[in-house]
Amino acid sequence: MTPSLTVHHLQVGQGERILWLLEELSIPYNLKLYQRDPFFSPPSLEALHPIGAAPVLEDATSNPENPLLLAETGAITEYVIHKYGNGRFALPPTHSSYADYLFWFHFANGTLQPTLFRRLGLRAVIQDETHPRFQMTTERIDRALAHVNSRLLENTWLAGDEFTAADIMSVWAFTTSRKFEPFDLSAYQGIQAWLKRCTDRSAYRAALPKGDPDLVIEELICAEGPSRFGAFTSQAKK
Amino acid sequence: MTPSLTVHHLQVGQGERILWLLEELSIPYNLKLYQRDPFFSPPSLEALHPIGAAPVLEDATSNPENPLLLAETGAITEYVIHKYGNGRFALPPTHSSYADYLFWFHFANGTLQPTLFRRLGLRAVIQDETHPRFQMTTERIDRALAHVNSRLLENTWLAGDEFTAADIMSVWAFTTSRKFEPFDLSAYQGIQAWLKRCTDRSAYRAALPKGDPDLVIEELICAEGPSRFGAFTSQAKK
Repeated sequence: MTPSLTVHHLQVGQGERILWLLEELSIPYNLKLYQRDPFFSPPSLEALHPIGAAPVLEDATSNPENPLLLAETGAITEYVIHKYGNGRFALPPTHSSYADYLFWFHFANGTLQPTLFRRLGLRAVIQDETHPRFQMTTERIDRALAHVNSRLLENTWLAGDEFTAADIMSVWAFTTSRKFEPFDLSAYQGIQAWLKRCTDRSAYRAALPKGDPDLVIEELICAEGPSRFGAFTSQAKK
Repeated sequence: MTPSLTVHHLQVGQGERILWLLEELSIPYNLKLYQRDPFFSPPSLEALHPIGAAPVLEDATSNPENPLLLAETGAITEYVIHKYGNGRFALPPTHSSYADYLFWFHFANGTLQPTLFRRLGLRAVIQDETHPRFQMTTERIDRALAHVNSRLLENTWLAGDEFTAADIMSVWAFTTSRKFEPFDLSAYQGIQAWLKRCTDRSAYRAALPKGDPDLVIEELICAEGPSRFGAFTSQAKK
């Protein structure tokens, strides 16, 4: 049975990971795009799910009258892989890289992104980057980046020899998310080479322009990072 | 083969979830406790894993000379369940509550805790709780709490009829984490009743005092929340 899936994607947002995953798995999907208003979700997207999160996967496969609405990128990724992808891009418990796969699957959403967005929150209320709290958060980020980099100097993909959902979960933090909370990758050759490998994949190149035709891959992966998201500064500091 | 596991637990920290899981699964484990110094991890724990995270699971089952060290609570939970727990407390893709299980498994670490800790970060640099950014974060938290509450008014456990790892992943945010970032549960009868059900489980009652003999369950689950962690205020505002 062909699944009946719709991705509700807040543009310049984490939903690009779900589009990329579906392209990798060659699973067809409908796409509903939402523009930021001007920085956060528009009311139509806020109303879709009780926590106002994006992306949301709508699955009408089993029940077209009352489709499932699923949020949390980690949950959507596991759901798509194990319901419709025959487990592809996940490693099984018997695999020698299983623990690495799990760590790197959870790392972006569990550690790296929360730390980046904590600094983004601080940036909105203090202008002084020498503030001890700001510096402390920067130290956490630098430590995380160094760990990712050393992993990728020694391995082709985050889980090891195989491209997995751990890569799909992680790329956004190093590309589009830098439009919100910038950081420089000049010192991280391992991360830069991995980003090139990931974004050269035909599925990534098919997904990104569908969700965000204005994003330019070469800018997203360049060492100094893409230009800041236009509406951010004024909105966040209001 | 009996697994050879050691949990490195930063006290008054998220590692209590791993102890609870291991007790639920009746899997034996060694426990190494670390005290906060005075608020963050002590150097001995920081040195254990490249990102300085806690908890860390040490698994010497396959390779006693060079044990595996695994961080990220979500990763450790999946690892233990699928390597040593026969998949217990996870729901399979064929289960009618699979999507709910996945959402609630990821929700605490993916949305609720990052939002709580974003407010904790703000609290450290602005004293004014009427600040728009503080209020915005509080609105996100209130929205998340309302969603959890309505789920638990209609279901015994987060995933539905069965107690799962989604419950184990989520309880900490509503109990011990309130020692860092407080919130009141008086308006959330569903959450309060669920906390009672969870913390009445014999595995929880076995785990908590092993990791944190000074924590009192009745205080952790009371509506107004436990007393703040003593060292927090001075350290965070320095």
